[in-house]
Amino acid sequence: MKHATDYLTFETPNRRDYLNITPQVEEFVRRSGIEHGLCLVNPMHITAAVYVNDDEQGLIADFDEWLERLAPHEPVEHYRHNRAEDNADAHLKRQLMGHQVVLPITDGRLDLGPWEQVFYAEFDGRRPKRVVMKAIGE
Amino acid sequence: MKHATDYLTFETPNRRDYLNITPQVEEFVRRSGIEHGLCLVNPMHITAAVYVNDDEQGLIADFDEWLERLAPHEPVEHYRHNRAEDNADAHLKRQLMGHQVVLPITDGRLDLGPWEQVFYAEFDGRRPKRVVMKAIGE
Amino acid sequence: MKHATDYLTFETPNRRDYLNITPQVEEFVRRSGIEHGLCLVNPMHITAAVYVNDDEQGLIADFDEWLERLAPHEPVEHYRHNRAEDNADAHLKRQLMGHQVVLPITDGRLDLGPWEQVFYAEFDGRRPKRVVMKAIGE
Repeated sequence: MKHATDYLTFETPNRRDYLNITPQVEEFVRRSGIEHGLCLVNPMHITAAVYVNDDEQGLIADFDEWLERLAPHEPVEHYRHNRAEDNADAHLKRQLMGHQVVLPITDGRLDLGPWEQVFYAEFDGRRPKRVVMKAIGE
Repeated sequence: MKHATDYLTFETPNRRDYLNITPQVEEFVRRSGIEHGLCLVNPMHITAAVYVNDDEQGLIADFDEWLERLAPHEPVEHYRHNRAEDNADAHLKRQLMGHQVVLPITDGRLDLGPWEQVFYAEFDGRRPKRVVMKAIGE
Repeated sequence: MKHATDYLTFETPNRRDYLNITPQVEEFVRRSGIEHGLCLVNPMHITAAVYVNDDEQGLIADFDEWLERLAPHEPVEHYRHNRAEDNADAHLKRQLMGHQVVLPITDGRLDLGPWEQVFYAEFDGRRPKRVVMKAIGE
């Protein structure tokens, strides 16, 4: 059995940002030398999510507006979590997006469909955040 | 370590459909010869989800109505993604359902609770779609 | 390759409860002897979820209120599932929370960020429920 672990670091300029990290995950899988296995991609902070969907700017704007509708940032004082903080909505938004993904590795590559792209969604940015990638297989 | 990979193909008759695929996943695990491991079941299209819940027709109707309330199909022009397409809601609905599942394999079988059933949820059907199953273990 | 399987049992006093199970998962990983791998934590009942987020009482109250807003328990008769039962909302709530998690194991421990805590969320309690933990690696 082979295994590989690596970390990505982000510090995004806005409160909410959506970054396509597929190239970094593919590069990690290539370096791992794993031909068949599973690759977990998990944010290590609880106000961010990793998800798989389309890389299309209109859709990303739709996601952002929709998340704001279902888990709005304002009014900040509406949330009990927001005594010393203002990021309760970020904790909720990341659950809506599923928060983590497990990707199949086949023949040494991510076994993705034609439109599947891996995204890092930041919901409380402007500070350093990490994502762990862990692959096991052979 | 053993590994196995297979694909399911669907072309459902309606825009939205909910198919119990537990028998296909169980058969895949049986053929893999894996006694203890993990089995990823992942839609390769980003307008569909794989989820685990009850196989009960009333509940499936409840899910469908609830998803339409939280991420409505209409008005189609409300979504920025829908310039050449009309499926933005499908991209959102699949995130609400968690989009993929990882199932435990114990003693050569899916280690499921009494009511856990694996579903393929199609939110933009009437075209060919694929699901990848990837199991690793020993 | 090593593998380990264990089960947790819960019977919570209220319809909805949120339990931090990180110590039990860490103990399971320690006993498994796995240094590098993946650990699935999955509720075996379809009216509960396992999720990762902050252990902060204000936030837990926010989650509970938010889940009630997006998938309300009442009116019970609104749901088609609720002919002989009253737990349709619990089936929906658990999907919103992502329902299961896969955790990385690095150097024999859960590879978690500073605030990541593993929770069992019960949405239809006052009866026995099980969670399966399955780890594979080496």
